[in-house]
Amino acid sequence: MARQVTIGIDVGGTKMLGLAVDDEGVVLSEVRVPTPGHRGTGPAAGPADAAGFELVIDALATVTKQLRASIDVEVSSVGVGAPGLVDNTGVLRYAPNLPGGTGLDIAGRLSERLGGLRTVVDNDATCATVGEWAFGAAAGVSDAVMVTLGTGIGGGLIAGGHVVRGASGFAGEIGHMVIDPTGPPCPCGRRGCWERFASGSGLGRLAREAAHAGRLDEVVSLAGGDAESVRGEHVTMAAREGDPAALVVLGELGWWLALGLSNLALALDPAVMVYGGGLLETVTLVLDKVRAAFDELLEGRIYRPEVKILPAQLGERAGAIGAALVARAGDRYRVDVA
Amino acid sequence: MARQVTIGIDVGGTKMLGLAVDDEGVVLSEVRVPTPGHRGTGPAAGPADAAGFELVIDALATVTKQLRASIDVEVSSVGVGAPGLVDNTGVLRYAPNLPGGTGLDIAGRLSERLGGLRTVVDNDATCATVGEWAFGAAAGVSDAVMVTLGTGIGGGLIAGGHVVRGASGFAGEIGHMVIDPTGPPCPCGRRGCWERFASGSGLGRLAREAAHAGRLDEVVSLAGGDAESVRGEHVTMAAREGDPAALVVLGELGWWLALGLSNLALALDPAVMVYGGGLLETVTLVLDKVRAAFDELLEGRIYRPEVKILPAQLGERAGAIGAALVARAGDRYRVDVA
Repeated sequence: MARQVTIGIDVGGTKMLGLAVDDEGVVLSEVRVPTPGHRGTGPAAGPADAAGFELVIDALATVTKQLRASIDVEVSSVGVGAPGLVDNTGVLRYAPNLPGGTGLDIAGRLSERLGGLRTVVDNDATCATVGEWAFGAAAGVSDAVMVTLGTGIGGGLIAGGHVVRGASGFAGEIGHMVIDPTGPPCPCGRRGCWERFASGSGLGRLAREAAHAGRLDEVVSLAGGDAESVRGEHVTMAAREGDPAALVVLGELGWWLALGLSNLALALDPAVMVYGGGLLETVTLVLDKVRAAFDELLEGRIYRPEVKILPAQLGERAGAIGAALVARAGDRYRVDVA
Repeated sequence: MARQVTIGIDVGGTKMLGLAVDDEGVVLSEVRVPTPGHRGTGPAAGPADAAGFELVIDALATVTKQLRASIDVEVSSVGVGAPGLVDNTGVLRYAPNLPGGTGLDIAGRLSERLGGLRTVVDNDATCATVGEWAFGAAAGVSDAVMVTLGTGIGGGLIAGGHVVRGASGFAGEIGHMVIDPTGPPCPCGRRGCWERFASGSGLGRLAREAAHAGRLDEVVSLAGGDAESVRGEHVTMAAREGDPAALVVLGELGWWLALGLSNLALALDPAVMVYGGGLLETVTLVLDKVRAAFDELLEGRIYRPEVKILPAQLGERAGAIGAALVARAGDRYRVDVA
């Protein structure tokens, strides 16, 4: 069979990462550009209008052209991993973090701009899951869950050797599972969503609570002396230096992470659960605590084989590699790499 | 193709229901016997020993023989739906509600007793899901979730046109997903499991809380005047007569049901969610409230097509019909009826 090269582009809140990937998952070329319209972090960071969306399409087209120009092989298709609800025709149905994206047909518009090149769009966390399933921590298993821990929580599911897409393509929106109905309010309008606890923003919240209670003095110093200025990064920094108080807060994060993971494990019975995203290193600092809490929270644990909880192996490239694989399959519903 | 008839047996906490089922799902014959060793309800109701297990195998063999004798067609295989964690070789790994069942090879032992007839064992709620998917409320869809609401909560998942089994065959154990970590203690050892709220026992608990708070006077009368004697059945009875206080308690049940359903919908994006089991009629009394709460709890609801929430159509036969279908496929991992 002739060598096939596809392009995968991961659209993040701050940057786009594009890769040209061959049959074996080898990265032949890499391009990164800032995500247009980005004005900060969190929902509605950029201008939510058609002009903003055009800039995103421009950037995607530019990344594709640069990657094509940088290699001497024809590219057969492009895959894009986008944040938000991407339906099964590649239309972005809800994208609070992507300027002007909601309701727009990325696949169709980008393909137009690229002279009809086959273009497939999928959710970014699902793409990362496909990447880790093909060449990373979940390689070779038929049932896996991946959670991407960033500002929020994204996810992807593999069941019985298939990527779980759902009826509309929206499966894996696990960050807003409510795990504490009287818990802290979430920007989504509910209370106690999982990502209020086990994400980067959740860690910041847990840390500021501890700081205001006088339990995080070293971390507060790192943050400049003000409890309200404490961020997750400060806790990770202090924990890495061995600060016991910081490790306690990371243990809380780990407990909430384990709670959501055990809920998903009850539903899906995966062999492997992979965690990735910006919090990867932070979680790894307390992985023993996550595993211990998971084992306590998983009903019937002693009757089950061990569920492996593993850090992602492809790092920040997982989403773009997965997007390239999704593009390769052509049909999102037929990506079966195992 | 010749007509094929298989037997399905649903092993409940109090009775076993056996059916002979043909290619179109038509029930040719029916047998029911009490589940041996049953001494009441709840975990460890029967003797958890090898003798108890032998009685279960005896009863399964008897049901099969009676069904075979009652029809004039050869039976090609038997399927058994059993409560608990059934692994992918048909061994029961954890079965608090089945006497002596844990760790025992139902499929192997029953097949021996039936002269080598092909025998397949699966989880009871998964069987019910297969039944509803083939001939009931979830017919024709590729992505569905079924919840069986009895003393506890069981579940089955259909994703992308496949039954979700998980790595060991344990998928769908959704009743013990923790949805309120500071909630009421669960016999499983955790706190705030979904089935503490949205099952028959959960309804009883919600009702007794309301009764002790003086909010359920009519229901307390129905229960004989003692708040502690109130059961879910009393609330359903009063609600059916239009008692507003009983409907409020059922509304609470419905809210908690919607919470767990919306969590599952976020993860799996089903087109249809089916509820069945002993609480079917009760839930239907407040289905509008369940739907309204579900719509409020589901993140991004306005960007999604409606998720249908439907009562099971096959009633108490769903599990046995599904078990007969699982037996038909021979290999649990290949049951794809849609």
